[in-house]
Amino acid sequence: MRRVAVVGAGMTAFGEHFALGLKDLLPMAFAECAASVDKGLKKSDLQAAWFGAMGTADGFPAGILADTLGLPDLPVTRVENSCATGNDAIRNALFGVASGAFDVALVMGADKLRDTTSRDMLWEWEAMARDMAWDYPLGVVSPAGFALHVRRYLHESHATPEHLAMVAVKNHRHGANNPKARLRFEITMKQAMEAPIVVTPFRLYDCAPQSDGAAALVLAAEDVVDRFTNRPVWIRGVGLGLDSVMHQHKADMTTMPATVRAAKQAFEMASLVPGDVHVAEVHDFFTGIELISYEDLGFAERFGGHKLVEAEVTTIGGGLPVNPSGGLKAKGHPPGATGVAQCVELFAQLRGEAVNQVDGARIGLAHNIGGPTAVAAVTILEGDGNGAG
Amino acid sequence: MRRVAVVGAGMTAFGEHFALGLKDLLPMAFAECAASVDKGLKKSDLQAAWFGAMGTADGFPAGILADTLGLPDLPVTRVENSCATGNDAIRNALFGVASGAFDVALVMGADKLRDTTSRDMLWEWEAMARDMAWDYPLGVVSPAGFALHVRRYLHESHATPEHLAMVAVKNHRHGANNPKARLRFEITMKQAMEAPIVVTPFRLYDCAPQSDGAAALVLAAEDVVDRFTNRPVWIRGVGLGLDSVMHQHKADMTTMPATVRAAKQAFEMASLVPGDVHVAEVHDFFTGIELISYEDLGFAERFGGHKLVEAEVTTIGGGLPVNPSGGLKAKGHPPGATGVAQCVELFAQLRGEAVNQVDGARIGLAHNIGGPTAVAAVTILEGDGNGAG
Repeated sequence: MRRVAVVGAGMTAFGEHFALGLKDLLPMAFAECAASVDKGLKKSDLQAAWFGAMGTADGFPAGILADTLGLPDLPVTRVENSCATGNDAIRNALFGVASGAFDVALVMGADKLRDTTSRDMLWEWEAMARDMAWDYPLGVVSPAGFALHVRRYLHESHATPEHLAMVAVKNHRHGANNPKARLRFEITMKQAMEAPIVVTPFRLYDCAPQSDGAAALVLAAEDVVDRFTNRPVWIRGVGLGLDSVMHQHKADMTTMPATVRAAKQAFEMASLVPGDVHVAEVHDFFTGIELISYEDLGFAERFGGHKLVEAEVTTIGGGLPVNPSGGLKAKGHPPGATGVAQCVELFAQLRGEAVNQVDGARIGLAHNIGGPTAVAAVTILEGDGNGAG
Repeated sequence: MRRVAVVGAGMTAFGEHFALGLKDLLPMAFAECAASVDKGLKKSDLQAAWFGAMGTADGFPAGILADTLGLPDLPVTRVENSCATGNDAIRNALFGVASGAFDVALVMGADKLRDTTSRDMLWEWEAMARDMAWDYPLGVVSPAGFALHVRRYLHESHATPEHLAMVAVKNHRHGANNPKARLRFEITMKQAMEAPIVVTPFRLYDCAPQSDGAAALVLAAEDVVDRFTNRPVWIRGVGLGLDSVMHQHKADMTTMPATVRAAKQAFEMASLVPGDVHVAEVHDFFTGIELISYEDLGFAERFGGHKLVEAEVTTIGGGLPVNPSGGLKAKGHPPGATGVAQCVELFAQLRGEAVNQVDGARIGLAHNIGGPTAVAAVTILEGDGNGAG
């Protein structure tokens, strides 16, 4: 397969952008992305685009993207894969460039939930992200579905609600100085442990906020990468894993086969193992999911996830910092944008330019899981390791 | 780019399947597709899938496909691109296989409109397929948007309402003996010309029926194609073209730049010209769109589309039969399935197995345009020409 690199990356702040629509957020993210390309990017360099979005209130997603960037003739494919949408958009763009069909492609992800129509959109998306015969009518929407997993996990493992709170405290601390994060404040263990229950075992600070935002990457084939930068970040591996949609079909609630499958594909493609990863952005839509994902991604042994957060291995300064951006927890979660934004953070980390820089980071991993636990996507990136070294 | 072939193809009949859901239609189409693979297909041969769908009433589209086929670990990407969804799903699957990431991939397209929730789904999809700031609130939904183009086309060209009727009569005749078509009856010019007006200049028989259905293709890389068949149908070219979403931004209503762009890409990739095509499935959601598309695809000179239908060039037995399946007009139009089903028809044509066989057909072209006229996709296929020869 032809090698493909990320040569530019940018994003809007995630938040409640009541005054902005997708038609505003998309060009804002693109502008930051274009400006990050060391040797410059002309719009005419772009040959194709992939757009990850759960939907738009503005109408036809692919066309909205092309029009809004002033590129009405750009071929745009919309990809939707629940919370794994962003990283799957990257995966499809990679295939487009690796196949030889295109040398330069744009990947964007965006979604907008916080506006006057947000309640309808949210329920429409909930309906599109789970099973409508059983789970949805029975109330197993996103927080409830993930809660079923984490309750069982707390029952079977030695992890406790304190470990969930530790994840929240860590990711709030990481996000506090990230200008792109929505919740830029630290919290204490006491605040986390005493916050109101949303759905057992999740309290308020265990949950990531639905948000508005957009993110963008420019991919270039190895043949042309020098036209754009001398500091490319290579896409080493991608993986997409699925699992049964209905919760009644999940044999073991304490592991998520979708993540295991996605990670296996991505590591095999990269010829790497979990121990090679220096920094990761992991799907912490709910705190407990970060712990389970440590195990499913191969960062921790079975039921050993809580030890990593307890020993501060996954805090900045630890052996494997996870969610240095603040994660979904502090940054927010516009589903189509989230996976792309994770790779925006990794692009900065692997070039030594991140707000919360992980010293000498060379291999980074991004991970999403959604459709509750029926789909996961993993992307593995590699920089030159000269970053902050 | 690595060569990729279609080695199997199947579809459900299109129609009003009130008793069947997507969970029924998908395995039906897959079963026919698997049975068409000459040397057999095991489910374990499939390494990845692309699923074209406007949406599902059943929930998470990618997961629904994997679950329903009994392959909960199959990586599935959902692609949505308005009426061009099916052919864009094929295009993305092609890139996946051509890149070397996979040797064998499944492409499916499906949508279901005719059920108890159909009115809500239809309006949801209409909202997702055009501009919501101007076109949708002003009533420019699908028939109205296409009507604006065809009214202007009738004004500027020598085409007349009789030519629109000729397209309807032709496609009804083609579809009459296609067991997969929804409207399996012939109509007369008088019936077409005297039918009630839907939106000027479209009368009842100028419009294709919204329908339910599913279609499937299996793609294989050249390296492994012999495992499946000695009669592959090669994907020679794919193209995706976009254009401004809002009608107020369209400079000339009598041509559709999205089609021109998609065709240019596909012909360039195939190293072919329009004159090389022996059989085509063209987007006749409304009769006049087939005429305009003759020109945009390069089959006719500017404003010369009506001459082709008048001279029966595009009727079976003519020089370039168009819509031998009956087209969207007679077959029906479940948007996600339509483009895939076009290639199911071409697979049969290029292997000499079609119901309305075009003698000696070797090169076939499939075309969709949607999001009204903001997106088009073109796929060019090649058989061995020994078909019905």
